[in-house]
Amino acid sequence: MRLEVVNTGSELLLGKVVNTHAAYFGQELFKLGLRVQRQTTIPDGEEIRTVLAEAFSRCDAILVTGGLGPTSDDITREVVAEMLGRPLHLDEGILATIREMFRVRKLRQNALNDRQAMVPEGAVVLENPHGTAPGLYLPADDTMGSPHLFLLPGPPRELKPMCADLVFPTLARLMGEDAALPEWRNFRIYGVGESGLATVLEPLLADLPDLEIGYCARLGEVDLRLIGAGPSIEAASAIVRREFFKEIVVESETPIEEVIVELLKERGETVATAESCTGGLIASTITDVPGSSAVFHRGYVTYANEAKSDLLGVPGEMLAAHGAVSDEVVRAMAEGCLRRSGADHAIAVSGIAGPSGGSEEKPVGTVHVAVASRGRETFAKRYFYPVDRISFKQRVTRLVLDLLRRRLRGIDPS
Amino acid sequence: MRLEVVNTGSELLLGKVVNTHAAYFGQELFKLGLRVQRQTTIPDGEEIRTVLAEAFSRCDAILVTGGLGPTSDDITREVVAEMLGRPLHLDEGILATIREMFRVRKLRQNALNDRQAMVPEGAVVLENPHGTAPGLYLPADDTMGSPHLFLLPGPPRELKPMCADLVFPTLARLMGEDAALPEWRNFRIYGVGESGLATVLEPLLADLPDLEIGYCARLGEVDLRLIGAGPSIEAASAIVRREFFKEIVVESETPIEEVIVELLKERGETVATAESCTGGLIASTITDVPGSSAVFHRGYVTYANEAKSDLLGVPGEMLAAHGAVSDEVVRAMAEGCLRRSGADHAIAVSGIAGPSGGSEEKPVGTVHVAVASRGRETFAKRYFYPVDRISFKQRVTRLVLDLLRRRLRGIDPS
Repeated sequence: MRLEVVNTGSELLLGKVVNTHAAYFGQELFKLGLRVQRQTTIPDGEEIRTVLAEAFSRCDAILVTGGLGPTSDDITREVVAEMLGRPLHLDEGILATIREMFRVRKLRQNALNDRQAMVPEGAVVLENPHGTAPGLYLPADDTMGSPHLFLLPGPPRELKPMCADLVFPTLARLMGEDAALPEWRNFRIYGVGESGLATVLEPLLADLPDLEIGYCARLGEVDLRLIGAGPSIEAASAIVRREFFKEIVVESETPIEEVIVELLKERGETVATAESCTGGLIASTITDVPGSSAVFHRGYVTYANEAKSDLLGVPGEMLAAHGAVSDEVVRAMAEGCLRRSGADHAIAVSGIAGPSGGSEEKPVGTVHVAVASRGRETFAKRYFYPVDRISFKQRVTRLVLDLLRRRLRGIDPS
Repeated sequence: MRLEVVNTGSELLLGKVVNTHAAYFGQELFKLGLRVQRQTTIPDGEEIRTVLAEAFSRCDAILVTGGLGPTSDDITREVVAEMLGRPLHLDEGILATIREMFRVRKLRQNALNDRQAMVPEGAVVLENPHGTAPGLYLPADDTMGSPHLFLLPGPPRELKPMCADLVFPTLARLMGEDAALPEWRNFRIYGVGESGLATVLEPLLADLPDLEIGYCARLGEVDLRLIGAGPSIEAASAIVRREFFKEIVVESETPIEEVIVELLKERGETVATAESCTGGLIASTITDVPGSSAVFHRGYVTYANEAKSDLLGVPGEMLAAHGAVSDEVVRAMAEGCLRRSGADHAIAVSGIAGPSGGSEEKPVGTVHVAVASRGRETFAKRYFYPVDRISFKQRVTRLVLDLLRRRLRGIDPS
């Protein structure tokens, strides 16, 4: 079944609102074995006519959001009725529901809202308990060459319940025996980039039948997705695990901070943070996880040298001799953090986020990180990420969380 | 000029990533007097060919994002070269840049990345200082019936600088005399919501001719935009300033953290942070600003009660008597932070981010915040934001930065 999504709304194209419908449909329809083949955003008004005319011949089903509201630029209902040659009639049931809703909310009913009770002949009304405009389902019509059409409200809090209760079950029924629930597996990978993965894996996986490989790279993190036939996914997974056993954070889409919190909880251990260049982002990322208070009790943001000495006991002479951005200092930060916090593990970073503050020897993007743990040798190393300031902070945060993950899993953190 | 945006990326249609490009283009192109007429998202692979063929005849310009990466499903460059009959050649300059980037980052260069140095004949190379794939600009070609084509990288941190530096200036030049730059003004407002603004302003602004009022609400922050005729914007601005002088952070789109850093720099003062429920996000937000090291030297992330006592001197008896989430404790946190850090101002927060940990008296979403300054009375107050954990952290961060802004500007922080 070829399916497309059409979102109408000038606010989406003016950038007033980020379109989250596309991602919502993608996630939910994938679970039904359906893929959105194309998603189109158009302004309110006449453009819906052109877009639907183009899409009719390509599609088996089209989901349209928006354009069912009460104002003059909401014309989806009228355009579809005209295109399909199905006259609109007033649905007394819908009208009564709208009037009751206005009465309950103590709003004055107006003629504009009555338009929302107009229904094209042969349409199935999709109830909307969260708003005035009901959705409409127009089954495919071979004589008109039209696919299955779902006209849906724009606001997410109206759209989502309607989809879950009425639209997705209808689509599942339409798919019938065609429904092939997809098999897939996601690997979340740290410490190697998209092209590094592809170079190793693509030759090894090339001969497996019915296997699609997808990559999604973010700062310091790649999702590798295998989609296709079960046996191929199993065989490919074994290869991915063999080649990248150090780099695989998790075989799912769980964020690394959740993995860290879970690993620490399992062990009954805690971590503390000592941050210079990340300025609190590592602590904030860990505490994004519900229940992180069990494993994270405190963090130090030591932006100035004096704070590094005062809060973590880094000797002033060491700072003077090596500079704050050095293996020596970051090691002292981590060990001071471990000692003073009483935590089982401490992670420390010191670097140059830029845009200024770099030198020839230590250019912007240089960072030293350390992981200290009770009864273990402290790990410290220099890295280099010459990216913008905000990306640098995110990149370094993911790096150091991955180094901690490796230590917790007994993988050499280098 | 009719302009469309095409976003390629299976991850967008699978819902792995929310498409923020569409909103970005909408906002930025509006400033040039351009509106996006249609935005289309398609999977990686062959669909780009169909979509471009359809859009060529409709458009004067098309912005394409994604599909320039190193892997086998990135084919935008090759498809466009073929459609326009412009053979690809290896650009030695780009190749050298890519190799240098790999060398500096100590990554192994591979043949896949070399593909990114292929350029269609007659294309203008758009440099990408933030990634390996350069953008490409193919001017309109009447013999091929093709519009102006911009092939751009997908990752936002690569895309945005390239657009700002190269793409938007080119579009502005192409518009030439057609450009009708809209007059507009943005007010960034804290401490009052969208409907609160509308209720006060809409009756007062109703009679001004040729004036469009736009709102964009985010967590704890509203952008109020006035668009239209110059005299109406001036008159409306005076009304907005009169009604909301306390709430206006800035008459621009400058983030509040930049406003704070600037205000502190002007006064030669510093701020320190003491965070419980925000877990480091306030410090991280301040240190997102380049040059913030001049005004921010340290932060305390005191997640556990013991850390509040140990690092900030909050008495154990006070914690036992009032609980960590109380005016008393957050006041002691701020004053302890002020004293121990030596900063001129200290901000402190303690609350219940959820999803668990709430009680009847202090439900999830409760937060106490304090602002302490040398020689001033400490301000402390309770607020309530019953939203999800991540939104709560952001909302509280913006609240406390706004309270500090009010103190720095001599506005009563209540």
